[in-house]
Amino acid sequence: MDTICAVSTPHGMGGIAVIRVSGDDALDIVQRRWQGKPIAGMASHSAHLGHLLDSQGEILDEAVVTIFRAPHSFTGEDVVEISCHGSMWIQQQVVATLIDAGCRAATGGEFTQRAFANGKMDLSQAEAIADVIASQSRASHHVAMNQMRGAFSRQLTALRSQLLQFVSLIELELDFSEEDVTFADRERLTTLATDVKAVIDSLAQSYQAGNAIKNGLPVAIVGATNAGKSTLLNTLLGDDRALVSDIQGTTRDVIEDTVVMGGTLLRFIDTAGIRQSNDVIESMGIERSFKKMDEARIVLWVIDATAPIAEIDEFYAQIKPHCRDKAVIAVVNKIDASAPLPIVKKLKGLDVGVVQISAREGTGIEHLKQEIVATATLPQVTDENAVIVTNSRHYHALVRAGEALDRTLQGLAMGLSGDLVSQDIRECMHYLGEITGEISSDDILGEIFSHFCIGK
Amino acid sequence: MDTICAVSTPHGMGGIAVIRVSGDDALDIVQRRWQGKPIAGMASHSAHLGHLLDSQGEILDEAVVTIFRAPHSFTGEDVVEISCHGSMWIQQQVVATLIDAGCRAATGGEFTQRAFANGKMDLSQAEAIADVIASQSRASHHVAMNQMRGAFSRQLTALRSQLLQFVSLIELELDFSEEDVTFADRERLTTLATDVKAVIDSLAQSYQAGNAIKNGLPVAIVGATNAGKSTLLNTLLGDDRALVSDIQGTTRDVIEDTVVMGGTLLRFIDTAGIRQSNDVIESMGIERSFKKMDEARIVLWVIDATAPIAEIDEFYAQIKPHCRDKAVIAVVNKIDASAPLPIVKKLKGLDVGVVQISAREGTGIEHLKQEIVATATLPQVTDENAVIVTNSRHYHALVRAGEALDRTLQGLAMGLSGDLVSQDIRECMHYLGEITGEISSDDILGEIFSHFCIGK
Repeated sequence: MDTICAVSTPHGMGGIAVIRVSGDDALDIVQRRWQGKPIAGMASHSAHLGHLLDSQGEILDEAVVTIFRAPHSFTGEDVVEISCHGSMWIQQQVVATLIDAGCRAATGGEFTQRAFANGKMDLSQAEAIADVIASQSRASHHVAMNQMRGAFSRQLTALRSQLLQFVSLIELELDFSEEDVTFADRERLTTLATDVKAVIDSLAQSYQAGNAIKNGLPVAIVGATNAGKSTLLNTLLGDDRALVSDIQGTTRDVIEDTVVMGGTLLRFIDTAGIRQSNDVIESMGIERSFKKMDEARIVLWVIDATAPIAEIDEFYAQIKPHCRDKAVIAVVNKIDASAPLPIVKKLKGLDVGVVQISAREGTGIEHLKQEIVATATLPQVTDENAVIVTNSRHYHALVRAGEALDRTLQGLAMGLSGDLVSQDIRECMHYLGEITGEISSDDILGEIFSHFCIGK
Repeated sequence: MDTICAVSTPHGMGGIAVIRVSGDDALDIVQRRWQGKPIAGMASHSAHLGHLLDSQGEILDEAVVTIFRAPHSFTGEDVVEISCHGSMWIQQQVVATLIDAGCRAATGGEFTQRAFANGKMDLSQAEAIADVIASQSRASHHVAMNQMRGAFSRQLTALRSQLLQFVSLIELELDFSEEDVTFADRERLTTLATDVKAVIDSLAQSYQAGNAIKNGLPVAIVGATNAGKSTLLNTLLGDDRALVSDIQGTTRDVIEDTVVMGGTLLRFIDTAGIRQSNDVIESMGIERSFKKMDEARIVLWVIDATAPIAEIDEFYAQIKPHCRDKAVIAVVNKIDASAPLPIVKKLKGLDVGVVQISAREGTGIEHLKQEIVATATLPQVTDENAVIVTNSRHYHALVRAGEALDRTLQGLAMGLSGDLVSQDIRECMHYLGEITGEISSDDILGEIFSHFCIGK
């Protein structure tokens, strides 16, 4: 393979930066820009101080190179890690001089892609590395680390071996089909397929929790226009703004922001104000608000304490169909302006939690945060070490694998011939193989690794 | 020394991050959070893959530790560098668990301060590390690297040894003073002091260039109110905004921004409009503009092509006293609105360069940039490897050392007694010692290293 290089540490200025070089000529290329002990003579896993030179042979920096010889490196190839001073200028120049000496600039995730190609890890483990790096909370880190360390892969391997057993039984039958012998006990095959199906279903179901862990537990903020939804959102995010990031691809009228609260990653979704409307455009916005509510696990219903009490019932009737299986917290806002006793009494009659706040003055916000954190239990995460699917690609592959198994079970029940049943099982294995990367195309790999940061 | 730790790579998320641990217990402390080959058994300069644990013994990350045993490390102490995945969460957790295991969080520059304390480098070299990291251009990098590698230190050591020779000659005379013997040839002493003075003066003079290299060559933008100064500034900085940074401590009415143009770091200074004014506040602003002009190496004089030609002479009379020894480029703006032929003709009669532009439409901007780059020759940097002083602390120490030498020379000329002359020379050596850190106080060290980034 050609030799690639990239800055692997975060973008910016710092004490030190690490430039990673990987490929057949990694040692030779770095040697061309190295003043110090000859790199060819360095043992694997050893670090050496010396000078990096630019293309004119001028000293660029004092640096430490660490050598990892194939196959005992991250990528499985010869790797040199160059630890230099962390100025932007040096980082740019080191990469430039390495390229001049024969390297190619690595694309996003290319080091990890090579690790996958060289059998250092399967595809789900490679994908987990990106998740590990993006982790913002203990839970998302834990799930990603588990996956990176191969917990998911081992479960898939176990499933695969069960399915292979199934296939070998049924295909043995096919070989002897002219003799009309039935080797495969259809009862046993059904049990096997049912067991596998149960595991696949439970993995697929874990995606709801996994998605919440990875992308944040969705909390929809709903309420009438001018109830103070956006002010509340800003107040909730305010202290932790540094940890807040925009979610890409959100529409302009639905604002999403994530924040870690009490150790849980929450994704707050500000929705358009909901009211009865004959205006087509406005109705569309309200439809979108309802859709966001449907996706949420927690609904913050913001109520203006100064609004007429009659509006409460009217509004609740509108949102109730979208609140099934969700925790609803009624947030009575603007208590600085009006004593909300009748409204609170009214709300307590409904099946919702009630918190009184003044978003403007900051009153009651801590209490509200505590309520949210107490309510924000992630679904179905009972076993700390259970495998949880967080990747939509894996989820969709699992769903398809499950569908193939459904067809298998139907086929068995209908007494379909072995070759047809076998075809469904092979399809199921195909989808599982897509997750681990046994089955993959360059397109799929390109798509996966293009979302990695450069240098990983 | 107690053991300190910090993230040494740039702040943010990346493929990998490096956490540095230094101190007597570095190996022991990391061992408490390490699952893998025992750290005590690792050779210096060797790298090992293993697992980092949190305080509960749970696996935090897969990581590579590299061991540098005292004194063969950056700080001169035992150092462990932990290379982990670059998520913000992991970085925070690794530092937290190391602190829990007995480390202290390092303060800014504390690793470098220890390197200085352990004699790995002198103070001017330590300071150069911060400059290396902050370098934005080839020139500033080159100067900082030279200083870090000890070129300045060697020159100071040479000066010091000459001065010591001087002192020993004159103090030998003192020991025998009762016998009225003159060991020291006053002629020779004068020559010695004059030679040293010449070197110190040339170092101090290099600061003008050094400051321009480090902080940017100052380019003042002056002109009448509404000539389009700010638009021009924005246009000049526009393409390179990513490289632009605010200079701290600038007053609100003088805006400074640096940008690398043609490989040279330029510091553009936007000044208040200059015109005859009886308003006290406005006059103060104009005074400030003149002061900024005095500091600049290049003056961009922005002229409105639509303004009456009589204003040219009037304005030039005002700024001329502040343009001595500077390159002045007259920038005739708004040529989209008016053909500026008479104005250009007028300007060509004065001793200034002339460029015609439309800042609004972007016309002529490339030409102007080329003119600026061609004019932006750094003063007095003839020898590529000459020592150039870039640090104001060093500059002021050199000035004081020079003053002490002046007194020495006066004393010699006046035939002052050896003990008085010796006192001045010792003062000169004191100031030079402040630069290298032979003479230093905790206050000075604290002040110097507090400007370093954490992790260095």
